[in-house]
Amino acid sequence: MQLSTPPGLQAIPSTCRGREVLDRVGDKWSLQVIAVLGERTLRFGQLRREIDGISQRMLTVTLRNLERDGVLTRKMYPVMPPRVDYALTPLGKTLLEAAGAFMTWAEAHVEQIDEARSAYDAKAESQAEQA
Amino acid sequence: MQLSTPPGLQAIPSTCRGREVLDRVGDKWSLQVIAVLGERTLRFGQLRREIDGISQRMLTVTLRNLERDGVLTRKMYPVMPPRVDYALTPLGKTLLEAAGAFMTWAEAHVEQIDEARSAYDAKAESQAEQA
Repeated sequence: MQLSTPPGLQAIPSTCRGREVLDRVGDKWSLQVIAVLGERTLRFGQLRREIDGISQRMLTVTLRNLERDGVLTRKMYPVMPPRVDYALTPLGKTLLEAAGAFMTWAEAHVEQIDEARSAYDAKAESQAEQA
Repeated sequence: MQLSTPPGLQAIPSTCRGREVLDRVGDKWSLQVIAVLGERTLRFGQLRREIDGISQRMLTVTLRNLERDGVLTRKMYPVMPPRVDYALTPLGKTLLEAAGAFMTWAEAHVEQIDEARSAYDAKAESQAEQA
Protein backbone atom coordinates (compact mmCIF):
# COMPACT_ATOMS: atom_id res chain seq x y z
CA MET A 1 0.00 0.00 0.00
CA GLN A 2 1.33 3.38 -1.01
CA LEU A 3 0.76 6.10 1.57
CA SER A 4 0.26 9.67 0.55
CA THR A 5 2.80 12.10 1.95
CA PRO A 6 1.16 14.52 4.39
CA PRO A 7 1.94 18.22 3.98
CA GLY A 8 5.19 19.24 5.66
CA LEU A 9 6.63 15.74 5.69
CA GLN A 10 9.22 16.75 3.10
CA ALA A 11 10.99 18.60 5.89
CA ILE A 12 11.58 15.64 8.14
CA PRO A 13 15.00 14.05 8.32
CA SER A 14 14.19 10.99 6.30
CA THR A 15 17.79 10.40 5.35
CA CYS A 16 20.29 8.68 7.59
CA ARG A 17 22.46 11.78 7.44
CA GLY A 18 19.71 14.08 8.64
CA ARG A 19 19.02 11.71 11.51
CA GLU A 20 22.69 11.55 12.35
CA VAL A 21 22.85 15.35 12.55
CA LEU A 22 19.76 15.37 14.78
CA ASP A 23 21.34 12.82 17.06
CA ARG A 24 24.62 14.68 17.30
CA VAL A 25 23.48 18.24 17.91
CA GLY A 26 20.21 17.17 19.54
CA ASP A 27 21.59 15.35 22.56
CA LYS A 28 20.72 16.98 25.85
CA TRP A 29 24.19 18.34 26.61
CA SER A 30 24.75 19.84 23.17
CA LEU A 31 21.40 21.65 23.24
CA GLN A 32 22.17 22.85 26.76
CA VAL A 33 25.59 24.24 25.73
CA ILE A 34 24.05 25.99 22.71
CA ALA A 35 21.26 27.49 24.81
CA VAL A 36 23.61 28.69 27.55
CA LEU A 37 25.99 30.31 25.07
CA GLY A 38 23.30 32.17 23.15
CA GLU A 39 24.80 35.49 22.11
CA ARG A 40 27.54 35.38 24.74
CA THR A 41 31.19 34.38 24.79
CA LEU A 42 31.96 32.13 27.76
CA ARG A 43 34.98 30.34 29.18
CA PHE A 44 35.08 26.66 30.00
CA GLY A 45 34.64 27.22 33.75
CA GLN A 46 31.69 29.53 33.22
CA LEU A 47 29.97 26.98 30.98
CA ARG A 48 30.57 24.27 33.53
CA ARG A 49 29.07 26.33 36.34
CA GLU A 50 26.00 27.23 34.29
CA ILE A 51 25.25 23.70 33.12
CA ASP A 52 24.02 21.87 36.17
CA GLY A 53 25.31 18.32 36.44
CA ILE A 54 27.73 18.20 33.50
CA SER A 55 31.11 16.59 34.15
CA GLN A 56 34.39 18.15 33.01
CA ARG A 57 34.93 15.31 30.55
CA MET A 58 31.41 15.45 29.10
CA LEU A 59 31.68 19.22 28.63
CA THR A 60 35.07 18.80 26.92
CA VAL A 61 33.71 16.16 24.53
CA THR A 62 30.52 18.14 23.81
CA LEU A 63 32.47 21.34 23.06
CA ARG A 64 34.91 19.52 20.78
CA ASN A 65 32.10 17.88 18.80
CA LEU A 66 30.23 21.16 18.42
CA GLU A 67 33.43 22.92 17.32
CA ARG A 68 34.04 20.16 14.74
CA ASP A 69 30.46 20.54 13.49
CA GLY A 70 31.05 24.25 12.97
CA VAL A 71 28.46 25.20 15.59
CA LEU A 72 30.83 27.03 17.93
CA THR A 73 34.32 28.53 17.92
CA ARG A 74 37.07 27.89 20.44
CA LYS A 75 39.57 30.70 20.89
CA MET A 76 42.70 30.14 22.93
CA TYR A 77 44.73 33.00 24.41
CA PRO A 78 48.46 32.48 25.10
CA VAL A 79 48.30 33.65 28.69
CA MET A 80 48.91 32.06 32.07
CA PRO A 81 46.67 30.58 33.32
CA PRO A 82 45.36 29.55 29.86
CA ARG A 83 42.19 31.27 28.73
CA VAL A 84 39.82 29.66 26.24
CA ASP A 85 36.66 31.36 24.99
CA TYR A 86 33.68 29.68 23.37
CA ALA A 87 31.01 31.36 21.24
CA LEU A 88 28.36 30.28 18.74
CA THR A 89 29.10 30.65 15.04
CA PRO A 90 26.41 32.06 12.72
CA LEU A 91 25.50 28.41 12.01
CA GLY A 92 25.20 27.79 15.76
CA LYS A 93 22.89 30.76 16.12
CA THR A 94 20.54 29.40 13.46
CA LEU A 95 20.56 26.08 15.33
CA LEU A 96 19.68 27.81 18.60
CA GLU A 97 16.78 29.52 16.91
CA ALA A 98 15.55 26.29 15.29
CA ALA A 99 15.83 24.24 18.48
CA GLY A 100 14.29 26.91 20.71
CA ALA A 101 10.67 25.83 20.36
CA PHE A 102 11.62 22.22 20.96
CA MET A 103 13.52 23.04 24.18
CA THR A 104 10.69 25.23 25.40
CA TRP A 105 8.22 22.41 24.72
CA ALA A 106 10.28 19.92 26.74
CA GLU A 107 10.49 22.22 29.74
CA ALA A 108 6.80 23.15 29.57
CA HIS A 109 5.48 19.59 29.34
CA VAL A 110 7.44 17.83 32.09
CA GLU A 111 4.39 17.56 34.35
CA GLN A 112 2.00 16.48 31.61
CA ILE A 113 4.40 13.69 30.60
CA ASP A 114 4.79 12.67 34.25
CA GLU A 115 1.02 12.33 34.56
CA ALA A 116 0.81 10.28 31.36
CA ARG A 117 3.52 7.94 32.66
CA SER A 118 1.82 7.45 36.02
CA ALA A 119 -1.46 6.63 34.29
CA TYR A 120 0.26 4.19 31.92
CA ASP A 121 2.12 2.44 34.75
CA ALA A 122 -0.99 2.19 36.93
CA LYS A 123 -2.91 0.61 34.06
CA ALA A 124 -0.09 -1.84 33.31
CA GLU A 125 0.06 -2.77 37.00
CA SER A 126 -3.66 -3.39 37.31
CA GLN A 127 -3.57 -5.56 34.17
CA ALA A 128 -0.68 -7.56 35.65
CA GLU A 129 -2.67 -8.12 38.86
CA GLN A 130 -5.68 -9.40 36.92
CA ALA A 131 -3.53 -11.85 34.97
CA MET B 1 31.43 35.88 38.71
CA GLN B 2 27.70 36.18 38.24
CA LEU B 3 26.58 36.07 34.64
CA SER B 4 23.56 37.96 33.49
CA THR B 5 20.83 35.83 31.97
CA PRO B 6 20.45 36.58 28.26
CA PRO B 7 16.93 37.15 26.96
CA GLY B 8 15.12 33.93 26.12
CA LEU B 9 17.29 31.80 28.38
CA GLN B 10 14.37 31.27 30.73
CA ALA B 11 12.99 28.92 28.13
CA ILE B 12 15.90 26.49 28.11
CA PRO B 13 15.63 23.19 29.91
CA SER B 14 17.85 24.05 32.85
CA THR B 15 16.34 21.42 35.08
CA CYS B 16 17.31 17.79 35.01
CA ARG B 17 13.70 16.89 34.25
CA GLY B 18 13.51 19.14 31.21
CA ARG B 19 16.72 17.63 29.91
CA GLU B 20 15.40 14.15 30.53
CA VAL B 21 12.26 14.92 28.49
CA LEU B 22 14.44 16.30 25.68
CA ASP B 23 16.54 13.18 25.69
CA ARG B 24 13.56 10.88 25.64
CA VAL B 25 11.37 12.43 22.97
CA GLY B 26 14.33 13.97 21.14
CA ASP B 27 16.16 10.84 20.12
CA LYS B 28 16.32 10.30 16.39
CA TRP B 29 13.84 7.43 16.24
CA SER B 30 11.20 9.12 18.39
CA LEU B 31 11.32 12.28 16.30
CA GLN B 32 11.14 10.19 13.15
CA VAL B 33 8.06 8.28 14.39
CA ILE B 34 6.35 11.54 15.38
CA ALA B 35 7.14 13.14 12.01
CA VAL B 36 5.96 10.13 10.01
CA LEU B 37 2.70 9.87 11.95
CA GLY B 38 1.81 13.54 11.62
CA GLU B 39 -1.97 13.74 11.27
CA ARG B 40 -2.29 10.13 10.15
CA THR B 41 -3.19 6.85 11.82
CA LEU B 42 -0.73 4.12 10.87
CA ARG B 43 -0.21 0.45 11.65
CA PHE B 44 3.04 -1.02 12.90
CA GLY B 45 4.03 -2.44 9.51
CA GLN B 46 3.34 0.87 7.77
CA LEU B 47 5.50 2.74 10.27
CA ARG B 48 8.29 0.24 9.83
CA ARG B 49 8.22 0.56 6.04
CA GLU B 50 8.27 4.37 6.21
CA ILE B 51 11.14 4.65 8.69
CA ASP B 52 14.21 3.61 6.81
CA GLY B 53 16.60 1.47 8.81
CA ILE B 54 14.59 0.97 12.02
CA SER B 55 14.52 -2.56 13.45
CA GLN B 56 11.33 -4.24 14.62
CA ARG B 57 12.57 -4.20 18.20
CA MET B 58 13.64 -0.53 18.13
CA LEU B 59 10.27 0.48 16.67
CA THR B 60 8.44 -1.53 19.36
CA VAL B 61 10.45 0.11 22.16
CA THR B 62 10.10 3.60 20.65
CA LEU B 63 6.32 3.23 20.26
CA ARG B 64 5.90 1.93 23.80
CA ASN B 65 7.91 4.82 25.29
CA LEU B 66 5.97 7.40 23.30
CA GLU B 67 2.67 5.81 24.33
CA ARG B 68 3.78 5.90 27.97
CA ASP B 69 4.74 9.57 27.60
CA GLY B 70 1.24 10.34 26.31
CA VAL B 71 2.57 11.36 22.89
CA LEU B 72 0.73 8.71 20.89
CA THR B 73 -2.14 6.26 21.28
CA ARG B 74 -2.08 2.56 20.52
CA LYS B 75 -5.40 1.02 19.57
CA MET B 76 -5.75 -2.72 19.27
CA TYR B 77 -8.56 -4.36 17.30
CA PRO B 78 -9.68 -7.88 18.25
CA VAL B 79 -9.40 -9.28 14.74
CA MET B 80 -7.28 -11.94 13.08
CA PRO B 81 -4.60 -11.15 12.10
CA PRO B 82 -4.27 -8.59 14.95
CA ARG B 83 -4.54 -4.98 13.92
CA VAL B 84 -2.90 -2.18 15.93
CA ASP B 85 -3.22 1.49 15.02
CA TYR B 86 -0.97 4.30 16.15
CA ALA B 87 -1.80 8.00 16.12
CA LEU B 88 -0.50 11.17 17.77
CA THR B 89 -2.39 12.54 20.77
CA PRO B 90 -3.05 16.30 20.99
CA LEU B 91 0.15 16.45 23.12
CA GLY B 92 2.05 14.61 20.37
CA LYS B 93 0.80 17.10 17.78
CA THR B 94 2.14 20.02 19.82
CA LEU B 95 5.47 18.19 20.03
CA LEU B 96 5.55 17.69 16.27
CA GLU B 97 4.94 21.38 15.77
CA ALA B 98 7.63 22.38 18.29
CA ALA B 99 10.23 19.97 16.90
CA GLY B 100 9.51 20.80 13.26
CA ALA B 101 11.97 23.66 12.89
CA PHE B 102 14.69 21.63 14.57
CA MET B 103 14.20 18.66 12.23
CA THR B 104 14.13 20.94 9.21
CA TRP B 105 17.37 22.56 10.38
CA ALA B 106 19.11 19.19 10.71
CA GLU B 107 18.11 18.10 7.23
CA ALA B 108 19.02 21.45 5.68
CA HIS B 109 22.50 21.71 7.22
CA VAL B 110 23.91 18.24 6.59
CA GLU B 111 26.32 19.51 3.94
CA GLN B 112 27.42 22.58 5.88
CA ILE B 113 28.24 20.39 8.89
CA ASP B 114 30.11 17.94 6.64
CA GLU B 115 32.26 20.78 5.32
CA ALA B 116 32.98 22.04 8.85
CA ARG B 117 34.05 18.55 9.91
CA SER B 118 36.36 18.09 6.92
CA ALA B 119 38.01 21.45 7.63
CA TYR B 120 38.40 20.60 11.34
CA ASP B 121 39.88 17.18 10.60
CA ALA B 122 42.29 18.54 7.97
CA LYS B 123 43.52 21.15 10.42
CA ALA B 124 43.95 18.59 13.19
CA GLU B 125 45.86 16.34 10.80
CA SER B 126 48.24 19.05 9.65
CA GLN B 127 48.91 20.01 13.29
CA ALA B 128 49.66 16.37 14.10
CA GLU B 129 52.15 16.23 11.20
CA GLN B 130 53.94 19.34 12.43
CA ALA B 131 54.24 17.94 15.95
